[in-house]
Amino acid sequence: MVKTETITIKTNGNCDVIDMTEHVNTAVVQSDIRAGTVTLFNIGSTAGITTTEYEPGLANYDIKAAFEKIAPEHARYAHEQTWHDDNGHAHVRASLLGPSLSVPIVDGRLTLGTWQQIILVDFDTRPRTRTIMCQIIGD
Amino acid sequence: MVKTETITIKTNGNCDVIDMTEHVNTAVVQSDIRAGTVTLFNIGSTAGITTTEYEPGLANYDIKAAFEKIAPEHARYAHEQTWHDDNGHAHVRASLLGPSLSVPIVDGRLTLGTWQQIILVDFDTRPRTRTIMCQIIGD
Amino acid sequence: MVKTETITIKTNGNCDVIDMTEHVNTAVVQSDIRAGTVTLFNIGSTAGITTTEYEPGLANYDIKAAFEKIAPEHARYAHEQTWHDDNGHAHVRASLLGPSLSVPIVDGRLTLGTWQQIILVDFDTRPRTRTIMCQIIGD
Repeated sequence: MVKTETITIKTNGNCDVIDMTEHVNTAVVQSDIRAGTVTLFNIGSTAGITTTEYEPGLANYDIKAAFEKIAPEHARYAHEQTWHDDNGHAHVRASLLGPSLSVPIVDGRLTLGTWQQIILVDFDTRPRTRTIMCQIIGD
Repeated sequence: MVKTETITIKTNGNCDVIDMTEHVNTAVVQSDIRAGTVTLFNIGSTAGITTTEYEPGLANYDIKAAFEKIAPEHARYAHEQTWHDDNGHAHVRASLLGPSLSVPIVDGRLTLGTWQQIILVDFDTRPRTRTIMCQIIGD
Repeated sequence: MVKTETITIKTNGNCDVIDMTEHVNTAVVQSDIRAGTVTLFNIGSTAGITTTEYEPGLANYDIKAAFEKIAPEHARYAHEQTWHDDNGHAHVRASLLGPSLSVPIVDGRLTLGTWQQIILVDFDTRPRTRTIMCQIIGD
């Protein structure tokens, strides 16, 4: 059985870290799938998906600092010379983090840890409305 | 068909890199699934899963050095001010590496390369007993 | 239904970024699967898979620069002392990027963004012929 939903999330961009666990939980419950895998996939190339303990320190500071070290916002990017825009760092960060995440479902529930939430990280330089595919395959 | 197992692994923390390929192989063989995808998912937010050539240089030194560069153990983390603990770097590293990995199964076998092993990297600052979901979907 | 194909790609190594979207599109169309998930998996431990906007700036310069910062080509790697070779950085980069990517299929099409392509990044230090598993599960 394959059930596909889209999740829509408004972000502030600029490394905004958003807890999307409840959106995914809702899709899992509504799917009636008891055992299977949910695949999350961000449509677009300036945001990514992973998990973290969603608390203000990590969400607002620490994750941002790590990406600023890997691909600084104000470094020079050839991408920006191609398009004359300002989000080269956003593209590089998103490619590194990756757009997809797979989470098993057991007994109709996501197998996340207690302090483990599913997050969208939006690296773009302006507020965006993101569409995330949420596809569940199972029985 | 969906088959789900849990894999339990004891680690030393501190960027311990553990070859979990045989655990996954065993689950694949026992599942009797000949064609499908195995999804591995680490429960918890201070460890991640990927592949590498499992040899002492990469496992004990090189992977650790790269993560120390990205998120140094002794830098300041807002996470540590939230909880008064010492594992901010572990959370950041785990979010970057990601908790999940998907590997196709063909003819009842994982499609890994000869020098490619599935590894758990435990970034926490103390020994942990990890639970990894191992879910196989296929025929 | 499970359909598995192999995709073969010749690379130049050295952080060569290759757009493999059309290969995956072809496999999806030929599978006749209308709703499901495609799992891509690079066999081998010196290349990885992700998505990006495939344009010359990102593909030829910016992604390379980020990986050169994380795991510089000419740093010292314990891996190179184990095998007396020169690709320690390639292994570290590939483990960080990860070998697998999952993309949902809806109405027989990959749910990629308009400016989002599936890329193979080959970190090895010489031209390689890569085999990528392309496995589609769905209805």
